Amino acid sequence: MQSQYFNRRGFHDKMRKTHEKREREAGLAIDKKKIAIIGNNKLSTSYAFAMMNQQLHVEMCLVTDKKAQVLKDIGYSAYFRPKTMLTSGGFTECRNAAVIVFTHDPFAEAENMQQASSVVRKFVNQWMETGFQGICVVATPQSEVVAHWVMKFSGLAAEKIIALGTMLDTSFLQWELGRHFQVNAKNVHAYMIGSTLEKGVPAWSRAYIGGRPILSYIMEEPERYSFDKWQPIVTQMKELPSEPLAENRLFDYSISLALVELTRIILEDERMILTVGVYVQNQFGMAAGFISIPAVIGAAGVKTTVPLTLSDSEQKQLAIVVKALEEAVLAGLPNEGGTKRGV
Amino acid sequence: MQSQYFNRRGFHDKMRKTHEKREREAGLAIDKKKIAIIGNNKLSTSYAFAMMNQQLHVEMCLVTDKKAQVLKDIGYSAYFRPKTMLTSGGFTECRNAAVIVFTHDPFAEAENMQQASSVVRKFVNQWMETGFQGICVVATPQSEVVAHWVMKFSGLAAEKIIALGTMLDTSFLQWELGRHFQVNAKNVHAYMIGSTLEKGVPAWSRAYIGGRPILSYIMEEPERYSFDKWQPIVTQMKELPSEPLAENRLFDYSISLALVELTRIILEDERMILTVGVYVQNQFGMAAGFISIPAVIGAAGVKTTVPLTLSDSEQKQLAIVVKALEEAVLAGLPNEGGTKRGV
Amino acid sequence: MQSQYFNRRGFHDKMRKTHEKREREAGLAIDKKKIAIIGNNKLSTSYAFAMMNQQLHVEMCLVTDKKAQVLKDIGYSAYFRPKTMLTSGGFTECRNAAVIVFTHDPFAEAENMQQASSVVRKFVNQWMETGFQGICVVATPQSEVVAHWVMKFSGLAAEKIIALGTMLDTSFLQWELGRHFQVNAKNVHAYMIGSTLEKGVPAWSRAYIGGRPILSYIMEEPERYSFDKWQPIVTQMKELPSEPLAENRLFDYSISLALVELTRIILEDERMILTVGVYVQNQFGMAAGFISIPAVIGAAGVKTTVPLTLSDSEQKQLAIVVKALEEAVLAGLPNEGGTKRGV
Amino acid sequence: MQSQYFNRRGFHDKMRKTHEKREREAGLAIDKKKIAIIGNNKLSTSYAFAMMNQQLHVEMCLVTDKKAQVLKDIGYSAYFRPKTMLTSGGFTECRNAAVIVFTHDPFAEAENMQQASSVVRKFVNQWMETGFQGICVVATPQSEVVAHWVMKFSGLAAEKIIALGTMLDTSFLQWELGRHFQVNAKNVHAYMIGSTLEKGVPAWSRAYIGGRPILSYIMEEPERYSFDKWQPIVTQMKELPSEPLAENRLFDYSISLALVELTRIILEDERMILTVGVYVQNQFGMAAGFISIPAVIGAAGVKTTVPLTLSDSEQKQLAIVVKALEEAVLAGLPNEGGTKRGV
Repeated sequence: MQSQYFNRRGFHDKMRKTHEKREREAGLAIDKKKIAIIGNNKLSTSYAFAMMNQQLHVEMCLVTDKKAQVLKDIGYSAYFRPKTMLTSGGFTECRNAAVIVFTHDPFAEAENMQQASSVVRKFVNQWMETGFQGICVVATPQSEVVAHWVMKFSGLAAEKIIALGTMLDTSFLQWELGRHFQVNAKNVHAYMIGSTLEKGVPAWSRAYIGGRPILSYIMEEPERYSFDKWQPIVTQMKELPSEPLAENRLFDYSISLALVELTRIILEDERMILTVGVYVQNQFGMAAGFISIPAVIGAAGVKTTVPLTLSDSEQKQLAIVVKALEEAVLAGLPNEGGTKRGV
Repeated sequence: MQSQYFNRRGFHDKMRKTHEKREREAGLAIDKKKIAIIGNNKLSTSYAFAMMNQQLHVEMCLVTDKKAQVLKDIGYSAYFRPKTMLTSGGFTECRNAAVIVFTHDPFAEAENMQQASSVVRKFVNQWMETGFQGICVVATPQSEVVAHWVMKFSGLAAEKIIALGTMLDTSFLQWELGRHFQVNAKNVHAYMIGSTLEKGVPAWSRAYIGGRPILSYIMEEPERYSFDKWQPIVTQMKELPSEPLAENRLFDYSISLALVELTRIILEDERMILTVGVYVQNQFGMAAGFISIPAVIGAAGVKTTVPLTLSDSEQKQLAIVVKALEEAVLAGLPNEGGTKRGV
Repeated sequence: MQSQYFNRRGFHDKMRKTHEKREREAGLAIDKKKIAIIGNNKLSTSYAFAMMNQQLHVEMCLVTDKKAQVLKDIGYSAYFRPKTMLTSGGFTECRNAAVIVFTHDPFAEAENMQQASSVVRKFVNQWMETGFQGICVVATPQSEVVAHWVMKFSGLAAEKIIALGTMLDTSFLQWELGRHFQVNAKNVHAYMIGSTLEKGVPAWSRAYIGGRPILSYIMEEPERYSFDKWQPIVTQMKELPSEPLAENRLFDYSISLALVELTRIILEDERMILTVGVYVQNQFGMAAGFISIPAVIGAAGVKTTVPLTLSDSEQKQLAIVVKALEEAVLAGLPNEGGTKRGV
Repeated sequence: MQSQYFNRRGFHDKMRKTHEKREREAGLAIDKKKIAIIGNNKLSTSYAFAMMNQQLHVEMCLVTDKKAQVLKDIGYSAYFRPKTMLTSGGFTECRNAAVIVFTHDPFAEAENMQQASSVVRKFVNQWMETGFQGICVVATPQSEVVAHWVMKFSGLAAEKIIALGTMLDTSFLQWELGRHFQVNAKNVHAYMIGSTLEKGVPAWSRAYIGGRPILSYIMEEPERYSFDKWQPIVTQMKELPSEPLAENRLFDYSISLALVELTRIILEDERMILTVGVYVQNQFGMAAGFISIPAVIGAAGVKTTVPLTLSDSEQKQLAIVVKALEEAVLAGLPNEGGTKRGV
């Protein structure tokens, strides 16, 4: 029902006019405050709702034609949280977006990896033909794999594509270690790397509390601190659905908060180190592909990676992840020698 | 699965111990930062999620035994938004809560008003026998009616019970008028009063932009400003589901933000004027009962009401609402002469 | 010492380059996030410090060549509050500022109004010749008078000039009445109008608590509420230094917070109603000049005024203020028939 | 003039009554939200102003009898920033404070260390005889030395005394390294340890960007990264007034923000690692005394220290600091063998 959009559209007439004027003057200039959200699911609405709550000064455009009621509902919310602007529209809205957040699960209805990659290709084509030149954040199951496909299909520079990857796993590891050491999680510098596709790898050899290696704690007080004691933390993380975004979308709330953090860091050019899925070449045991490792994220996407000297054991675990990622990517790219593989 | 609660419970061991110590010392002292949320539905989780996002310094306790997965999900969110503490437990958690937010829809499975009031009575009994002495916020369909029942069944002082009432309708009216007058909604002082049960009544005769009556705008520029032009706004509001909380819970997002605002105002004793459902005697045409009118809300609940001199036409519209509210309340209280009435 | 600027300049190399590029492309486009602060005094540093604390997403440029140490000090603060960027420079920095905040007291060393207006003219010339086309906020003693001079000397459109005026007096009146009525000051809609030059005029006839006129409170409970009881509030305000910005700059803290509020409302186009000094013609008893009245403030400056129907008594008081303002303005503009007048 | 306090006192009548009631019931219970600020200087007002701006939910009590005008000024600010409550009073206000922030410079008018320590003793006696049992934050020149004296004179447990120490130096080092590595300062884990009394010691051997040692950056890209290149940063810090709090109080703004951070971490029990002056025994080369090192700070004060394995060179530099600190402390405690020493 068209009238349902009435009030939201009304709010933004003025800003739209400003946009249009600017575009006329400057071609398809990127609107540094505009996020296009692709995917008609609970994650995208949770994310939009979290953004409104946190009052980021952005325009979020839901690219969909089905969410009238949710839009109206969140639209009423503007009275209480007026700074974030919520709009909706077709793929054309991607043309000047600074960031696309891609949340559509391509595996949901696909029978194999090729079908899944076709779904991704279809979405990518729709947004790329608008002239989109911003950053693409991939928040789907197997996000590193999907990010790889997005790179292939879009032709966007690798540093403009960021998979959510193990960002949430790292935050959980830091939170649990913070509890264990009775210190604020912000002072725990420990990373889950690899992928959510396979078992993530906790990089213990590069983990610190403040400036002190966790290994020092273990060496000096072995009764009090030990990997054995932390095994339940890691096990618990491995018990997380290996695809946290799938299966009843149980983790939409926490994932949407990670997404708010990630997109805020991009839009405000915060240059923070996050463990997200980024494209590497000859790093962390991967010849060329997306893998979750610490990287500096800012307005230009992936600014640089942070190389870590891992232990032999960690390298071995990571090699398993690398192999699984490579196979999954290829399974969706038959022209490049991939074979069918079930999701 | 018990282990699913593991980490959240862990977080709060310390705080629990502090609480227990304090209680031993001081009896069942109210924890001024504790909110107990009753109701296992999307509204209660949206509300909890919005509280986390806005980082209110409170403990929210979900009184339920079914939400393990949502709790775990929101629990992971604590890394990104650590100030708000989320816990869960049985009704015993109400004993020292400062505020109960009652979101369970008693009409959902009831066949008539008596069954609905029985559902309310059952919940009230469970929380009252813990010794609860705080404020009760009612966020259900027909919230003024349910608030009345809660008062009857709980024996709590009337000023401790607040129905969400037309709070959202007022915010929508102010937002739309703000758009119309091209002024911030915070400078629009206009109220929807009455109830969401029947058509709400916009109190035009008491509406102002800044210090200027809306009636003055109409008198001086009748071509530009008129009630006719605003009719679509009011009509649109009337098209809101007459029970905004029911029917697929479409408005959970905006309602949860209104709830955040209301509970924040209570906990921080802000003494703000809100149009919420409060108990009045011989005011606004009501002998004795709950109706949505402007009231000053603070830590003690309803501090006072703000009497408005309404026009004849507004009084007539309000009389219809009063009658409907009185009948609905009585229909659930047969001992007091009520008759059965379908929901 | 040049090296003292080293680190701050360093921070902002990148942003400067972006600016310069943008300017090359777009001529002297206004930087919507840039505030130039003119005036080397405690108010300007308190204002800059308050902006950093509140983390507004702006660049504040102190136009001065003397504040090296304060800049360095506030510069170190960026670690704790990184969002607000503080820079310094010459008048050339005004060229693309969205807002100039003029805090230099022209009366401080002037012997008469003509000397004071000459000081203002000198500053105005310096910033206007850069091509400045933004909004000018006047935060000096006799701010309405200085605003008038700024309009004359700059040739800027009247709606682009805003005097701080009685904004602080209004906030104080609302705060005190809020205490009296035991309601949040945000729900008190009462204005001090006129000027800080003469006694401000409380517009009692247009004052409301929520939607209820204050006159209704007085009529219905004359023992409890009366103008006599509020006289101390108004008297206390009149005891404020008639020039709150002068005399040991006692009120720099509260004035700087009012300035933060005012500039935030401009930059974020909030369209809030404030009692600030704006240019009116044939309104509030003034033929043509600046006077403090309720006006809607947004990104374009003064969007519109809010006409108030005042009582006879209020009109009489206001007439005295109008006369004083007109005389003070003319005293600094001898070519237009003004005579010398002591400050 | 007594009436100047009128309005502030008025605001808080209610809260005072609540306090008094609670105290009657519970003895001299600590008010977990109350900070007593001792010292009549620009730092204490900058700190109070910063707290209001950041809207921490606390009561700040300025213990002084001279600041009427500043209090009134900041009092008016409450309209714009209402959450932080500012009061004033005598030393008796310390009785139930959670935190005392001691900002009075004991060296300002002292001719030698004994006179300085006498000034400290006088203040300590005044607040201790009220029954104060909270945390004492020392924000004076030579803060580690003064903290030691406070411990001696007060008899408070060592973990309840925290000197501001090198907290600001660390933040500056992290900020500058963040610029150098083009990464957010929050991801730079590098500490200035020792004292502001002597040259602070940058603990390079324990410095990391994310999880990567700074030494690794230097080893792998020696042309790009080297201590030589960072020498200017450290030199610049050494050029900071060796007593940043003295000499015209140039750094009051940044110090007041560090104080806000420190007191917030205490009040909200954030358990953050900060380099502040804490009491150690047989750590970092010090037999027993206060020195600035990384420590976990929370509601109970110093929760624990974070031992760092330093390089030989760093240990040597630290030994010089330790010696200077020990001598300075003793110089003010003649009964324990100290000798007179000029400030």
